Amino acid sequence: MSNCYKILNISTGRPFEVCDITEQVESVVRESGVLEGTVAITSLHTTCAISVNENEERLFEDIRNFLLTIASPEGSYKHNDLHLRINIPPDEPENAHAHLIAMILGNSETVPLHDGALVLGRYQSILLLEMDGPRERTYAVQVVGVS
Amino acid sequence: MSNCYKILNISTGRPFEVCDITEQVESVVRESGVLEGTVAITSLHTTCAISVNENEERLFEDIRNFLLTIASPEGSYKHNDLHLRINIPPDEPENAHAHLIAMILGNSETVPLHDGALVLGRYQSILLLEMDGPRERTYAVQVVGVS
Amino acid sequence: MSNCYKILNISTGRPFEVCDITEQVESVVRESGVLEGTVAITSLHTTCAISVNENEERLFEDIRNFLLTIASPEGSYKHNDLHLRINIPPDEPENAHAHLIAMILGNSETVPLHDGALVLGRYQSILLLEMDGPRERTYAVQVVGVS
Repeated sequence: MSNCYKILNISTGRPFEVCDITEQVESVVRESGVLEGTVAITSLHTTCAISVNENEERLFEDIRNFLLTIASPEGSYKHNDLHLRINIPPDEPENAHAHLIAMILGNSETVPLHDGALVLGRYQSILLLEMDGPRERTYAVQVVGVS
Repeated sequence: MSNCYKILNISTGRPFEVCDITEQVESVVRESGVLEGTVAITSLHTTCAISVNENEERLFEDIRNFLLTIASPEGSYKHNDLHLRINIPPDEPENAHAHLIAMILGNSETVPLHDGALVLGRYQSILLLEMDGPRERTYAVQVVGVS
Repeated sequence: MSNCYKILNISTGRPFEVCDITEQVESVVRESGVLEGTVAITSLHTTCAISVNENEERLFEDIRNFLLTIASPEGSYKHNDLHLRINIPPDEPENAHAHLIAMILGNSETVPLHDGALVLGRYQSILLLEMDGPRERTYAVQVVGVS
C-alpha cells in the first residue's frame, strides 16, 4: 500500500467564501503515485467545511445566501455569549452560526482514485467553505491505495 | 492491499427521487474479495447526493417535502438566471435548489467492511438522492482493504 | 496494509444529545498500530449521526435548538403515521424528524491518521449526535493504512 499525507494552507478573504481546492488535491494525488484508492480531504477547523459541487460564480452567491439564511449570523446563540464561557482566547469571535453551517455541510469528503486520477463528474469541484473569515485555514489530504 | 473500482448507472424517474443502491454496492464489495476495509460511494453529479438512512416509502415522502421546503425549486437563485451565465449548454436546467440540497446531504458516504460484508445497522440502506431528474445518473464505488 | 475494526457502544441519556467520542476512536487507532491512513467512523442507526466539531457545552445547546427548529419533532410527517405502515415493531417511535436531521448531518466522517495520531484541529472533536434517545447506540470504527 502507498499513501501520501499533506497539510495544505489557504488564505480566505471574506467572512463567507467558497474556495475551489481541486487542483491542490490533484497535486497531492499525483505526488503520491497512488493509482487505485481513495483520497480523504478534511477541514482542520470547526467553522470551515469540505464539499463537492460546481464551481460557478453565481451559484457561490446562492450558497452563501442559502446557508446564511438557514443559520443567520444575527441569530441568538448561547455559544456567542462570550462572557458566560470559560477559557476563551481574547479574540474569540461570535461565530456560532459558522459552527452550525459547518456541521450540516460536513467536515470531510472522500473521492475515489482510478488510474491515478480523481474520480469527479464533469461539473464537480472540491470546495472548501469558509464561514468565519478572513483567516489562514488548513486542511488535510490523505491518499490511501495502491501504486 | 486489494481494491475494486466500479462506475454504476441508475435511471431516475422523477424530479426528486430517493433510490436504494445497497444491493448494487454489495455486488461490488463481493466481487472485490476485500474482507476488511472500507467502501466509498460517491455521486458524480452536483445535483445528486449519497446518504445512508432507512428505506421506508413514507419516510421518502417526508425527505422530499423536508428538503424541497428548505431549498424550494420556486425560490429566487442567481444560478437560475441562465441569461447572465456564460458557456452553458442549451438544455441547462434551473436547478440551483438541487445543488444546495446536494451540498447539505453530502457527496460521499464511507461504509466499513468486515468479514467481506457491509457494516450497516438493521434499518440502514445506502441511498442515492436525485434532486434534478429524471436523468441517467452515475456513481462511483471504490473498495479499499485486505482480502 | 494493516487495519482494525471495532463496534463501540454508547448509552445516551436524553432525546437529543451530543456525545464526544474522540477518546474512544483514539483508542481504536492506537490499538490498530496504523501509522499512516484513515479512520472511518459510522453510525449504525438511522436516527443518529457522526460529525466533527467543537466540544463546547453552550454550542451543544445551539446545535440542539438549531436542528430541532429545522426539523421539528412536532411537525407533520408521513413516517409518523404508524397505523399506515406495515411490519413495524410494537415500540416504533414517532421519529421522522430524527431521520431528517441524521441525513443532513451525515452518517460517516473520515479522519486522516499521521504518525499514528488522528489529524484533528485544535478545537475539533468527533461527535455522535443522538436525535431519538435515550438509547443504547452502536457505531463502527474502521482503521485502514500502513503500520
